[in-house]
Amino acid sequence: MRRRNAIKLAAGAFIGGGACVTAMTTAFKTEAQAATPPKKIDFKESKTVWQYHKLNPKKVAKIAYEGYDVGSCMFGVFESIMAELGEQYGEPYASFPSQMMKYGHSGVGGSGTICGTLNGAGAIIGLFVEDKKIQDALMGELFYWYENTEFPIYKPAKPVMDFTPPTSVAHSILCHASTTLWGKASGFRIKSKERKERCRCLTADVAKKTAVLLNKYINNEFVANEHDNETVRGCMTCHGEEGKLGNTAGKMTCTSCHTPSAAHKVFGDAHYKFMDKK
Amino acid sequence: MRRRNAIKLAAGAFIGGGACVTAMTTAFKTEAQAATPPKKIDFKESKTVWQYHKLNPKKVAKIAYEGYDVGSCMFGVFESIMAELGEQYGEPYASFPSQMMKYGHSGVGGSGTICGTLNGAGAIIGLFVEDKKIQDALMGELFYWYENTEFPIYKPAKPVMDFTPPTSVAHSILCHASTTLWGKASGFRIKSKERKERCRCLTADVAKKTAVLLNKYINNEFVANEHDNETVRGCMTCHGEEGKLGNTAGKMTCTSCHTPSAAHKVFGDAHYKFMDKK
Repeated sequence: MRRRNAIKLAAGAFIGGGACVTAMTTAFKTEAQAATPPKKIDFKESKTVWQYHKLNPKKVAKIAYEGYDVGSCMFGVFESIMAELGEQYGEPYASFPSQMMKYGHSGVGGSGTICGTLNGAGAIIGLFVEDKKIQDALMGELFYWYENTEFPIYKPAKPVMDFTPPTSVAHSILCHASTTLWGKASGFRIKSKERKERCRCLTADVAKKTAVLLNKYINNEFVANEHDNETVRGCMTCHGEEGKLGNTAGKMTCTSCHTPSAAHKVFGDAHYKFMDKK
Repeated sequence: MRRRNAIKLAAGAFIGGGACVTAMTTAFKTEAQAATPPKKIDFKESKTVWQYHKLNPKKVAKIAYEGYDVGSCMFGVFESIMAELGEQYGEPYASFPSQMMKYGHSGVGGSGTICGTLNGAGAIIGLFVEDKKIQDALMGELFYWYENTEFPIYKPAKPVMDFTPPTSVAHSILCHASTTLWGKASGFRIKSKERKERCRCLTADVAKKTAVLLNKYINNEFVANEHDNETVRGCMTCHGEEGKLGNTAGKMTCTSCHTPSAAHKVFGDAHYKFMDKK
């Protein structure tokens, strides 16, 4: 935010001085980073005892929905896959201390950071996939889906309550933003049992998607970078690790927290057209 | 942010109409939430095989610093405690698959959400502390410390590189904000080896703090709510789960992402004086 204010001030200065505008727009006329092309990822068997086996995503979703009441979101996603592997294959899955994952509730200890469902999915991916780049690719696909999908989608056969949650798009992988936007879309309070049912169904959705991705991966069918986050790519052209401003890192959709400043209008290039969306 | 814009618009309307101002300020003249008083937490032995034992925080810090190069931040913190327990007590610690925690690097798969050191600490706390409220209290203390402390503090006896990282205050538990502010304070790029050394030392700091907190807890000396996040408490008076606006949840310091809007100036109560800090 302080950075943003600094840029705003700078933009004000540009607008006040024509020569400066010309110099700066030239200096910043960077080609937007190209999208990373989709790439088939080859399955690499884990060298540990922790092997993933193909699971039925619908069954996993059901276990996750039911598991939410035992340990909420992170636990629900993690345990859905671990419990099903334990059921089918016994050890070492059966004795994994999944209860530890309860800590991730409400964005880690209630703090509102990463949605617990995604933290649970990350932990499962971290356990079964050794290669860091492949881990990141699987999480990247999942997180993109989370940011852009209207959920919850899951319809329980035996719902905990007689309520079908309205849907919303989270535009963010943070619990704080995801729940706030749902509250705004639905009119329900964060503390309500209706919001909990929304998160219960979302736990099932993320567990299902995680199983689908891992099934694809071990089946040699996972394609990384299928989706391009144009917003992040555009911002990171200048603000990312290799950009001219080079001052930040991350893959979260920038515009969930940051509003493009006046500076970007000065640059007014087609590359920055996404800046006008909000 | 959309919410904030809505409030700004509303504030504009208030300023334009005196009667409305009076009505709204009266409506929102809420007593700020009282600070939760400090409370001694009694140790509850875990009913599982996962028992924490008192460790030497300095030794834990050294293992975490060295572990950073094996699996970065989340792994570094988690493994520092697990490896030391395994070294001293053998199983079940020795065979825990700590390598799974590598997924938390750079805010989970590079996404920039929760700082990996804190996610690793959360996972350790989740494993050894069964009571959810006590988990939250331990994480709350750690997260408050993280948001407000000038770090890194750790000075390795055998540094990986000849460089003492400048310090900064993160004001946030998000990797994205924490590293960005350090880059701004230090002048180093996010991709630099200097930034990695900063995070290596920070990994040692968080591991040490986590061991100190767990040592206190099992020694019946842990006091929850010793620190009061006045900013969050102030904002949550209206915006929190039980507030009149009741539209959001979280414990992250609000002002790291949100700038108080003009609406709050209209309310100009002493309860909102923290709003003028930025």
